[in-house]
Amino acid sequence: MRIYDILDKKRNGNELSDEEIRFFVSEYVNGSIPDYQASALLMAVCINGMTSSETATLTKAMAESGDMLDLSAFGGNTVDKHSTGGVGDKTTLIVAPIVASLGCNVVKLSGRGLGHTGGTLDKLESVKGMRIDLAPDEFMTVARKCGMTVCGAGANIAPADKKLYALRDVTATVQSIPLIVSSIMSKKLAGGAKNIVLDVKTGSGAFMKTLESARSLAKGMVEIGSLSGKNVSSVITNMDKPLGFCIGNSLEVAEAVSLLKNEKCDNDLRDICITLSSEMVALSKGISVSDAKARVEKTLENGNAYKTFREWITLQHGDVSVLDDLDKFASATFKTNLLSPCDGYIASSDAAGVGIAAMMLGAGRSAKEDDIDYTAGIIQLKRVGDKVEKGSVIAILQSSTVADQASAQAKMLESLTFSASKPDPQPLVYEIIR
Amino acid sequence: MRIYDILDKKRNGNELSDEEIRFFVSEYVNGSIPDYQASALLMAVCINGMTSSETATLTKAMAESGDMLDLSAFGGNTVDKHSTGGVGDKTTLIVAPIVASLGCNVVKLSGRGLGHTGGTLDKLESVKGMRIDLAPDEFMTVARKCGMTVCGAGANIAPADKKLYALRDVTATVQSIPLIVSSIMSKKLAGGAKNIVLDVKTGSGAFMKTLESARSLAKGMVEIGSLSGKNVSSVITNMDKPLGFCIGNSLEVAEAVSLLKNEKCDNDLRDICITLSSEMVALSKGISVSDAKARVEKTLENGNAYKTFREWITLQHGDVSVLDDLDKFASATFKTNLLSPCDGYIASSDAAGVGIAAMMLGAGRSAKEDDIDYTAGIIQLKRVGDKVEKGSVIAILQSSTVADQASAQAKMLESLTFSASKPDPQPLVYEIIR
Repeated sequence: MRIYDILDKKRNGNELSDEEIRFFVSEYVNGSIPDYQASALLMAVCINGMTSSETATLTKAMAESGDMLDLSAFGGNTVDKHSTGGVGDKTTLIVAPIVASLGCNVVKLSGRGLGHTGGTLDKLESVKGMRIDLAPDEFMTVARKCGMTVCGAGANIAPADKKLYALRDVTATVQSIPLIVSSIMSKKLAGGAKNIVLDVKTGSGAFMKTLESARSLAKGMVEIGSLSGKNVSSVITNMDKPLGFCIGNSLEVAEAVSLLKNEKCDNDLRDICITLSSEMVALSKGISVSDAKARVEKTLENGNAYKTFREWITLQHGDVSVLDDLDKFASATFKTNLLSPCDGYIASSDAAGVGIAAMMLGAGRSAKEDDIDYTAGIIQLKRVGDKVEKGSVIAILQSSTVADQASAQAKMLESLTFSASKPDPQPLVYEIIR
Repeated sequence: MRIYDILDKKRNGNELSDEEIRFFVSEYVNGSIPDYQASALLMAVCINGMTSSETATLTKAMAESGDMLDLSAFGGNTVDKHSTGGVGDKTTLIVAPIVASLGCNVVKLSGRGLGHTGGTLDKLESVKGMRIDLAPDEFMTVARKCGMTVCGAGANIAPADKKLYALRDVTATVQSIPLIVSSIMSKKLAGGAKNIVLDVKTGSGAFMKTLESARSLAKGMVEIGSLSGKNVSSVITNMDKPLGFCIGNSLEVAEAVSLLKNEKCDNDLRDICITLSSEMVALSKGISVSDAKARVEKTLENGNAYKTFREWITLQHGDVSVLDDLDKFASATFKTNLLSPCDGYIASSDAAGVGIAAMMLGAGRSAKEDDIDYTAGIIQLKRVGDKVEKGSVIAILQSSTVADQASAQAKMLESLTFSASKPDPQPLVYEIIR
């Protein structure tokens, strides 16, 4: 078998065989196929596509390029969750304890974030003492005790995806549904859960800008999951505006804690978390979504979800006292108020722009080696649909250096539009694909 | 400007600007753009194509990546010729002296061959003493004295093409009309001639297997040549069967000499040479093709073409005495006869197969570093349309080791088909695009 012939075949738009795809993945990971041949194949796949069968084989080959987590000891109740990423997305911190408190088992391996804010791992590290670098026997123990764990994916989870993603990132071959599907799903397959719920975000702050592209990705992931023997559900959600009040690492942890404690919370965030949790419970338990939803609402209201959350944080050595009393939680050095430039309503809040403003404040990384300021971020006191008055405070911007404030203020303001009348509400959940 | 954005644009099928194409070529040649980004772009171009304007810019940028020959001292009569390559193609050795003897100026920079037989340079080196590595001032002196020269293209003629071609060769991105056009035409532009005639071969022994693909290439080259201020004509010719009697380096030189001396020759070879020469003279002199053809036939018949050929070989230090008396020319150590397996007619002779048989005998290179046996090759005593009797000699196979004979005999026989009745003649020249 020769990579040249594989390139030739895909350039001509033909379907690759299982053997050809497995050959490519194994020979690329072991260094026998050079980057310049791999990138040419990736470009051919981007333009000419891959069939479901090709995508399924690629996904499996990538998953099997490294360690495969064995969660069989947990039985069939294992459930994983993945979000394609958005601004203010702290749902994992909320839905994992909800479903774990209902008897599902969540072993979630996460990555670092590159973008507006950190990823889930970065958010968790804003809690003093929290360890996210547990060895497999350690995190399995945590999951056995409290029903859940969230940890860093070791270097050997889907190493083929790591190597291919790095190449895609510099060759403009990220935008390809089959490649995105295989990248996400290979890590989910390696993660070992039987049930998987995917939050596919769409809109200005999401990777998928259009509903159409989000739908293609959502369908592709459900299909590939099913072909691999998993129960998969994709929830397509709105990311035209940021999710929730807060953007920033410790700010988002605090917001998640408030919601779990039934304190002040954003309705959109709560609705999405309940939708995702209900899908996870329904898949894992084999019950209807409406039954699952009733259990989800109950476990939130009776405090069991927060109880599980506390137990989990404690088991991973996080300082839970600051979460019990959020006034003690990390606070930023510099805080400035963003004032409304007019009377009226906030008509729109461009999620991408608000995300960049948060990054300017220090909440995210623009390069892998950048440090994150956990306390930096934005509290949106007023959001889309809210009435504002000229000069009233619409957001608080937090950072550790005063220098970051001016440009972030400008960026934040640029991301908002105002209107004289109340804007029509936008859909929150577009559709669910099972 | 970033290569990432250029890749993104071409992946989406959009037209690149002149600046973007020039940026790519210059940054790739100087090493700033790595192979893995260049190969991704080449694949995107293969699949999504390039407009004429993009192709023209790419061609110019590649030509200008190195030395540009200045032939202005010769006036407007400069003419170049290029063949896309075939089996038994020795036309350059014939048409260059024909047109030079008619007052055209031919400064032809050639490459080495990789394939069935050597390229024109290899064929010339089968003549003892012949120098093809002349410095620019040396070959210009030769051209001034006898109207023509054929030399090796120095390393700095279209270096961008050399680097890109090496990458295309290992990434299955050779098959792309815009890339083939730019590769060929960049070297022709750097060669400096005002008039260019292209012999685009099509059929089993050619790079372009179908007439349709040959036509696309032919049109593309005429268009890009015109956009670059050149007079260009493309002649599409048959390469389903080998051209002429002989395949092999010294054998082909001898065949060319016989034709120029008005001795025994193959009619197809003579017709193609007259067609190509007439186009070259017509373009250079601004006269009609029929007038040009009359001059071409006359210069062949009156011996002026051969006189020019002798003068040229002598000026490049070749031993002309063996050409005057071909019996003294290089002869192979081992010669075997291929016998006809039946009575009837030769119905077809697969050019690709005959070419491989010649390579097996040692006439060509399968890798760059292979040595060529100048005397190895095949003399086709009987060709397509000829009557044969069972047991009669239809070809003589020549090699320097007896070991090469058996497989070459088998390959040669496998390439032939026989029929009871005389096959219909095939077109020799399909069309001429100006």
